[in-house]
Amino acid sequence: MLAVNILAKKRDAKVLTSKEIDFIVKQFVAGKLPDYQMAAFLMSVCINGMNQAETFDLTKAMLSSGQVLDLSDISGTKVDKHSTGGVGDKLSLIVVPIVAAAGLKVLKMSGKSLGHTGGTIDKLASIPGFKTKLSIKEIISQINEVGAVFVSQLDDLSIADKKIYALRDQTATVPSVSLIASSIMSKKLATGANAFVFDVKVGSGAFVKSMAEAEGLADIMLDIAKKSGKKATALITDMNQPLGKAVGNSLEVKEAIDCLSGKGSREVMELSKAISIEMILTADGADTYSEAKLKVESVLNSGEAKEKFAQIIAAQGGNEAVVKNPEKLPLASYEYNYLSKNDGYVSFKDCQLVGEAACLLGAGRSFPGAKIEPGVGLLFHKKQASRVKSGQSLATIYYQDISKLKRAVALLDKAVMVVDQQPGRFLLIKEKLSSE
Amino acid sequence: MLAVNILAKKRDAKVLTSKEIDFIVKQFVAGKLPDYQMAAFLMSVCINGMNQAETFDLTKAMLSSGQVLDLSDISGTKVDKHSTGGVGDKLSLIVVPIVAAAGLKVLKMSGKSLGHTGGTIDKLASIPGFKTKLSIKEIISQINEVGAVFVSQLDDLSIADKKIYALRDQTATVPSVSLIASSIMSKKLATGANAFVFDVKVGSGAFVKSMAEAEGLADIMLDIAKKSGKKATALITDMNQPLGKAVGNSLEVKEAIDCLSGKGSREVMELSKAISIEMILTADGADTYSEAKLKVESVLNSGEAKEKFAQIIAAQGGNEAVVKNPEKLPLASYEYNYLSKNDGYVSFKDCQLVGEAACLLGAGRSFPGAKIEPGVGLLFHKKQASRVKSGQSLATIYYQDISKLKRAVALLDKAVMVVDQQPGRFLLIKEKLSSE
Repeated sequence: MLAVNILAKKRDAKVLTSKEIDFIVKQFVAGKLPDYQMAAFLMSVCINGMNQAETFDLTKAMLSSGQVLDLSDISGTKVDKHSTGGVGDKLSLIVVPIVAAAGLKVLKMSGKSLGHTGGTIDKLASIPGFKTKLSIKEIISQINEVGAVFVSQLDDLSIADKKIYALRDQTATVPSVSLIASSIMSKKLATGANAFVFDVKVGSGAFVKSMAEAEGLADIMLDIAKKSGKKATALITDMNQPLGKAVGNSLEVKEAIDCLSGKGSREVMELSKAISIEMILTADGADTYSEAKLKVESVLNSGEAKEKFAQIIAAQGGNEAVVKNPEKLPLASYEYNYLSKNDGYVSFKDCQLVGEAACLLGAGRSFPGAKIEPGVGLLFHKKQASRVKSGQSLATIYYQDISKLKRAVALLDKAVMVVDQQPGRFLLIKEKLSSE
Repeated sequence: MLAVNILAKKRDAKVLTSKEIDFIVKQFVAGKLPDYQMAAFLMSVCINGMNQAETFDLTKAMLSSGQVLDLSDISGTKVDKHSTGGVGDKLSLIVVPIVAAAGLKVLKMSGKSLGHTGGTIDKLASIPGFKTKLSIKEIISQINEVGAVFVSQLDDLSIADKKIYALRDQTATVPSVSLIASSIMSKKLATGANAFVFDVKVGSGAFVKSMAEAEGLADIMLDIAKKSGKKATALITDMNQPLGKAVGNSLEVKEAIDCLSGKGSREVMELSKAISIEMILTADGADTYSEAKLKVESVLNSGEAKEKFAQIIAAQGGNEAVVKNPEKLPLASYEYNYLSKNDGYVSFKDCQLVGEAACLLGAGRSFPGAKIEPGVGLLFHKKQASRVKSGQSLATIYYQDISKLKRAVALLDKAVMVVDQQPGRFLLIKEKLSSE
C-alpha cells in the first residue's frame, strides 16, 4: 500500500477503504508517514469530504492509536456529555453535578480554551486548589465514591488526534465535519462511556455557523456512536449570543453555582435541565421523559446537585467553600460599565467577537500555553431583544489591564448593538436527534 | 499575512491575489513556510484549481526565486521548444539541429527521464563523450559559434520549482494544469528565450490523457508566454502510440540521425518538419509558412541539418562520428523478436505500458538516481492499423537482462494487440494554438 496512491484517491473524491484509512493513521502515528503527506491528505478530506463509513473508519483508526480506558470497575452506565464549543458555555459545570446527584456515573474529560471559546478545564482551574490532572486509579476511585470526575485530556488516549490536530491548526483543515467528528469521537470512545449526549452549538459564536452543518455534524457523531454500540442523543442549540450572563472563568463558575442553587437565568436553567434529562434518558436512568425531569428538578430543589458539586470540588483538592461563598473565587481588580449609547433593543450581531473580547482580556489563550487570568471576563445584564435606555449598563467588564479593556470594548461595539427595531429572539433548543 | 489564511482561501475555492501567491512561494523558498503547509496548499490548488491570472502569478513568483539567464550577448531571436513528455519522443534531437541550421539560436534545456517517458538528456548521454553539464559561459559561447546547445537543468533557475516538484511527487499533487504549467514556464522563462513552441502530447502514452486537458494546458502556457511578452505557438499532438519506431536512448538517437538524413519514418518526418516550421515562424525567421517550410526542407536536403547535429555533438565533447556511423552508438547485448501470434491489424491499447516496458528494460529510471542502460529499448516494425501475419515481427526488443525481458514482454502483451478488425489510425497533429 502506497500513501501517495491513497492521497490520489481522495484528491479525486473517491471513497477510501477501511484498510486505506487505517494505513494512513497507523503510519502517521508510527512516524513513517511524513507531516507533509498527512497535511495533503487532510486538505483533500477537508475539500472532498468523507462519507459516514469513512468517518467511522477514521474514528476507529484514531481510537486504536491510543489506550481505551477500562471502566469495568465502575458499576452502572457511564454517561458523557460533549459540547462543540461556545461562548459562556458553563453547562458541564452544572449538568455533571445534576446527573451525578441523580445517580449516574460521569467521567467528564474536557479541554482547555480553544480560539474564541472557553474551556471547562480553565473554568475549573479558577477554583482555588482544583486539580484536573488525575491518574486512572484516582479517576475510577473518585467516580465510585462521588459519582463524577472532571479531568483534562489524558495523554495516552487517541494519540493520533493530538498529532493530527496540531497539523490541522496549521494547514487550514479545521472546518471539516468528518475531521471534527472523528477527533471528538475518538477521544470520547476512549474514555469508556456507554452513553453520550452531544450539545451541538450553532450560530455566530460557534464553530458551526449553519443549521445544515450542525445537523451534519450531529448525524455523523450519532452514527459513529451507534456503530460503536453506544446510545447517543444530540441537541442542536443556539450560540448567537453568550449562553447566560457570564463569559470568563471564575464568573462562569459563579453563574454555574447560581444555577445549581436554582437561581440561574431562565436560559441556562432551561438548557441545563434539558441536557441533564437527555443524559439520564440516554443512560437508561429513567423510563420516561417526565420521570427524568422529576429527578432533575428534585436534585436541584433539594440542594443535592449543589452539594454534589461541592463534593466533586473537595475530592479534587479544590476549596469547596466557594459553593456557599462564591466571593471566595478570584475576581479581576477592575470593573468597567459598558453602557448603552441610546434607547432601543439589544441585538447580538457577532457572538464570536464576544468570545474574542473575553479571550483578549485574558480568559482564553491567543497562543498555546498563554497564561489565563481566572477573574477577567464579561457579565451581561441585557440579552437579545431586551429593551434598554441610553446610559443603562449592558454589561460589566472585569479586567486587569486598561489597554486590553480598550480593545475589548472596541470588539464589543461590533458584537452587540442597540437598535431601534426590536430584533427576533433566538430559539434556544433548535432540534433533537437520536441514534435510534 | 498569515499562510494559514491563504490556505483557507484556496481550500474554499477563492481566487488568490498576486501578493498572497508571492508570499507563499517566497516564504517556502526561504524555509519559513514548512513542507506540510506547502503540501496542503498544493493539494488545495490541485483540487480547486487556479485561474489564468493566478497561474501567471505563481509562475512569476517561481521564476523570481532563481536566476534568469542574460542572453544579451547572443544576437537575434532565441527560440525554445518544449514537449510535455511522451514515449519515443526524440523530436528535440531532430528539430534543434534543423532550426539551428536554418539560422535560429537555440538554448535547449532538457530533463532526464520521468516516469514512463524518456528524457532528452538521457538520449544524448548515449552518445559517447557527450557532456550536458555546461557553464553559462560555455552555453553562450557555443550558441554564438554553433547556433544551438543542449543542456541539463541548471541548478539556480526556478529554485522554487525544484522544491515544489519534490513535494508534488510525494503528495499526489502532480496532475494539476496550473502546477504543471507554472513548473514548465518558470524554467523556460528563466532561460531567456524570446519565442516558444509547445508540443502538448495527448493520449494513453502522455501525462495528459484528454483533448480538453491538453487544450487547457496549451492555453495556459500560451497565456503565460504572452503575459511575459514572448511569442508562442502550441501544437497538440498524438501520443497513443510511440512516436516513430524507436523507444530507448541510443535507438532513438539513431532514429533521429535517420530523420536528419531524410530517411525517417513518415510520422517523425512530418512532426519534425511541423515543429521546425513553427519554431522558425514564432521566432520571425520567415515571413510565411511556405518560406519557413522551404528553409526546413532545404537544410534537410542539403545535409546541413545533419551536419549541424554533428557540430553540436563535437562542441559538447561527444563523438560526432556517430552521425555518419550510427553503429558506433551503444547497443544492448541481446535481441528478442516480438512476434504477432495471429493474423490481423496492430492496435495500440495503452502506450504508457510501452514506456513502462522500456523503463523496465533500463531505458528510464524507476527511482531517482537509477542507472540508465543506454542501448536497451524497443524498435517497432509495425504501427497502428498495420496489417500483420501470424509469426511476423511486431518489434525487436534490445535487452541486457533476461528476467527484465520477460516482464517487458508481459507489459507489451497488454500495450499492443493484433485484432481482427482494422482499427482507426491516430491523427498525428490534432490542433494548433497561438498566443496571438
